[in-house]
Amino acid sequence: MRFVDTIEKKADGNVLSKEEIHEMITGFVDGSIPDYQMSSMMMAILQKGMTPEETAELTMAMMHSGDTVDLSDLPGVKLDKHSTGGVGDTTTLVVAPLVAACGGTVAKMSGRGLGHTGGTLDKLESIPGTCIEQPMDRFKEIVKENGVCVIGQTGNLVPADKKMYALRDVTATVRSIPLIASSIMSKKLASGADAIVLDVKTGTGAFMRTKEEAFTLAQLMVDIGTLVGREVRAVVTDMNQPLGMAVGNALEVREAVQLLSGMIPETDPLYDVCMLLGTQMLLMGGLAKDEADARAQLQAHIKDGSGLKKLQGMITGMGGDASYLTVENMEKLVRVKQHVSLKAESSGYISSMNAESIGTAAQMLGAGRAKKEDLIDPAVGLVMKVRCGDQVQAGDELCDLYVNQDGNLSDVEQLLHSAIHITAEKGEIEPMVYGLVTRDTRKN
Amino acid sequence: MRFVDTIEKKADGNVLSKEEIHEMITGFVDGSIPDYQMSSMMMAILQKGMTPEETAELTMAMMHSGDTVDLSDLPGVKLDKHSTGGVGDTTTLVVAPLVAACGGTVAKMSGRGLGHTGGTLDKLESIPGTCIEQPMDRFKEIVKENGVCVIGQTGNLVPADKKMYALRDVTATVRSIPLIASSIMSKKLASGADAIVLDVKTGTGAFMRTKEEAFTLAQLMVDIGTLVGREVRAVVTDMNQPLGMAVGNALEVREAVQLLSGMIPETDPLYDVCMLLGTQMLLMGGLAKDEADARAQLQAHIKDGSGLKKLQGMITGMGGDASYLTVENMEKLVRVKQHVSLKAESSGYISSMNAESIGTAAQMLGAGRAKKEDLIDPAVGLVMKVRCGDQVQAGDELCDLYVNQDGNLSDVEQLLHSAIHITAEKGEIEPMVYGLVTRDTRKN
Repeated sequence: MRFVDTIEKKADGNVLSKEEIHEMITGFVDGSIPDYQMSSMMMAILQKGMTPEETAELTMAMMHSGDTVDLSDLPGVKLDKHSTGGVGDTTTLVVAPLVAACGGTVAKMSGRGLGHTGGTLDKLESIPGTCIEQPMDRFKEIVKENGVCVIGQTGNLVPADKKMYALRDVTATVRSIPLIASSIMSKKLASGADAIVLDVKTGTGAFMRTKEEAFTLAQLMVDIGTLVGREVRAVVTDMNQPLGMAVGNALEVREAVQLLSGMIPETDPLYDVCMLLGTQMLLMGGLAKDEADARAQLQAHIKDGSGLKKLQGMITGMGGDASYLTVENMEKLVRVKQHVSLKAESSGYISSMNAESIGTAAQMLGAGRAKKEDLIDPAVGLVMKVRCGDQVQAGDELCDLYVNQDGNLSDVEQLLHSAIHITAEKGEIEPMVYGLVTRDTRKN
Repeated sequence: MRFVDTIEKKADGNVLSKEEIHEMITGFVDGSIPDYQMSSMMMAILQKGMTPEETAELTMAMMHSGDTVDLSDLPGVKLDKHSTGGVGDTTTLVVAPLVAACGGTVAKMSGRGLGHTGGTLDKLESIPGTCIEQPMDRFKEIVKENGVCVIGQTGNLVPADKKMYALRDVTATVRSIPLIASSIMSKKLASGADAIVLDVKTGTGAFMRTKEEAFTLAQLMVDIGTLVGREVRAVVTDMNQPLGMAVGNALEVREAVQLLSGMIPETDPLYDVCMLLGTQMLLMGGLAKDEADARAQLQAHIKDGSGLKKLQGMITGMGGDASYLTVENMEKLVRVKQHVSLKAESSGYISSMNAESIGTAAQMLGAGRAKKEDLIDPAVGLVMKVRCGDQVQAGDELCDLYVNQDGNLSDVEQLLHSAIHITAEKGEIEPMVYGLVTRDTRKN
């Protein structure tokens, strides 16, 4: 079949066969299908969709376009987590070591931040000496010794995704849910985990702007996992405000250390989402008999400090200086030239926030990249002092800015004032967690 | 606005502005918008459509991407006709000279055949000596002296269409009705006519497979004409069987000579469609007071031979030997090595035909091109001996094949047998003309 006929088949809303999908990916990666045909196909997919079965085939074809990681020589169920990207989301640095402390095996490859969302690799690199590029043997050695390691992607994993994403970005086909799902899942599956918990964010700081879209994406990724024989669960969580209070690389590392040291209360949203993700990982790993047991284990490993020890062990294994990861020394990571306090301009309630703008404000301070080549400043960023629903008086502190270069400070402050909405009425506040999606749920 | 945002706007089903449409065409022609973005946009247009206003802007932008022809120094209303392409459609060779004989000015640029449909230029070139490439001055001179001339496209007309069509062909976006309409209309408008009659074909031998699609396309092209200040009318006609009996270049020239010599009865479908098209041209040109008057004029110029004289005058003007265009000499044009008679294999009624297959059969005999580079044999083709609804006995002649190379003759015969359907019941026969579309009609 000529590829133009395959495009027409999808443009007419038909289901593509396994062979057609594999020929598409093979041809696109080897260059026999040119960009202009692939972009037309991706627009047809955006418009007409794909079934879960088609998306699973696409995911497998993408996964097999390059190297795959074999973790079978590591003990137990290999556990992974993934977030679709948010602001102040430092859950990996909390959950991965905590699950390891409970006896789990967490061998995870992570990504960098781009735009308004942070990336775990950038946070790890804010700890002096830490090298996120590790040979596969060394990576596995750290996991065997310590139960957990998080590194950058190694080898030629999923080249199809790199090429497709670059094209989607310039052809207005980024937001196709089957293409998002196969992009995420092909990389997760290629990384070798047996069981994966996904955190699908929705709200002003997330790619999925509505709950409906988020549940659709979550269910589709769970279905793909089921169809290819891996266990996948997903939680849909709120990103209408930063998840944690800290937004910035070392600032988020400090918040992880605080949480793992028992300094953050159970009522905190970051704490809550960490418990939720950790619970699902322990259940999938066969390490807890029910949710209550899982939660109790996670909390015990916060209290006895063994979760923090796992984080320290991982950093030591990666060449980093783990002495920073203590309540005594963590402040050294976030030393900046200047603190600026953003104050409320009026009295009332924090009715809503634009999380994307808050992420962008931190990026403008130097915490993130606008372009891939940009350098980041690990220490800068901001710490929120309020959450949605809080009552404030004019003059109260809204957030504490950590500043090294103040050239654009007034722009940052203006952006933050416009992003934090203060109104006379308290209004309805969204919950932090919207739901859990497993192979047994059908939210859509 | 970045072009990726314009693509997204259309992908979401929004209406593009005049500026966005003109930037798109300018950028695509100058290369600043790459193929892979344009193909994504064209798939979005296929899926989401365009309003008549958007399509008119697209048509104007395409028209102004290259040279345009100025016919204002010719007298009267400059009249043009265009067919969306059919099998056995030799109307141009009949209608253009007849309208000129009635006092009209017909300065027309035409195209070549490709695939199963014939092209007027190939038919003209089957007359020895005729040169379809004429300088603009000479073209106008012939029109001034003779009232009619049909030549090949001259100059750099509508380069946007050439580039867009090449891309549509390989990205499954050919059948977008706004893209078809703008492709046809941009070329027609660039050719300089004041008033245009369009023959939109529908059926097995046409690009528009359903009447609904054909009326949508017809109305859209009429709307474009209205929006840009030209008068456009369209007829929707049947292409479920060849229009004339002859399929092949010189064979169709002979049929035109026969019609212009009064040898073809008024009940003949080709005659009927020629009257319809000619009537609309005379009315638009202000040359007839009503349809009956127009029809009477056209018939009078068949009877007195002045229509044929106009065709002869045009061919003489183009360097061709007009002596072939007489009842006495026309047989010389269609001399072949071998005639093969295709016979009915069963008795019954001709219930339907696949006109595309009949066109392809003629092409396989050498009357058309599979690829642009292919040479054609002007004399070969076929003459149908039956029409839909006719009763036949086994052994009756279905068509007369004009053959010079018989290497693939059995394939051609097999294709024709499968294309001419004989059934016990007569069944419903489609009319030849489905309707007229003008600025005052709204068929859809």
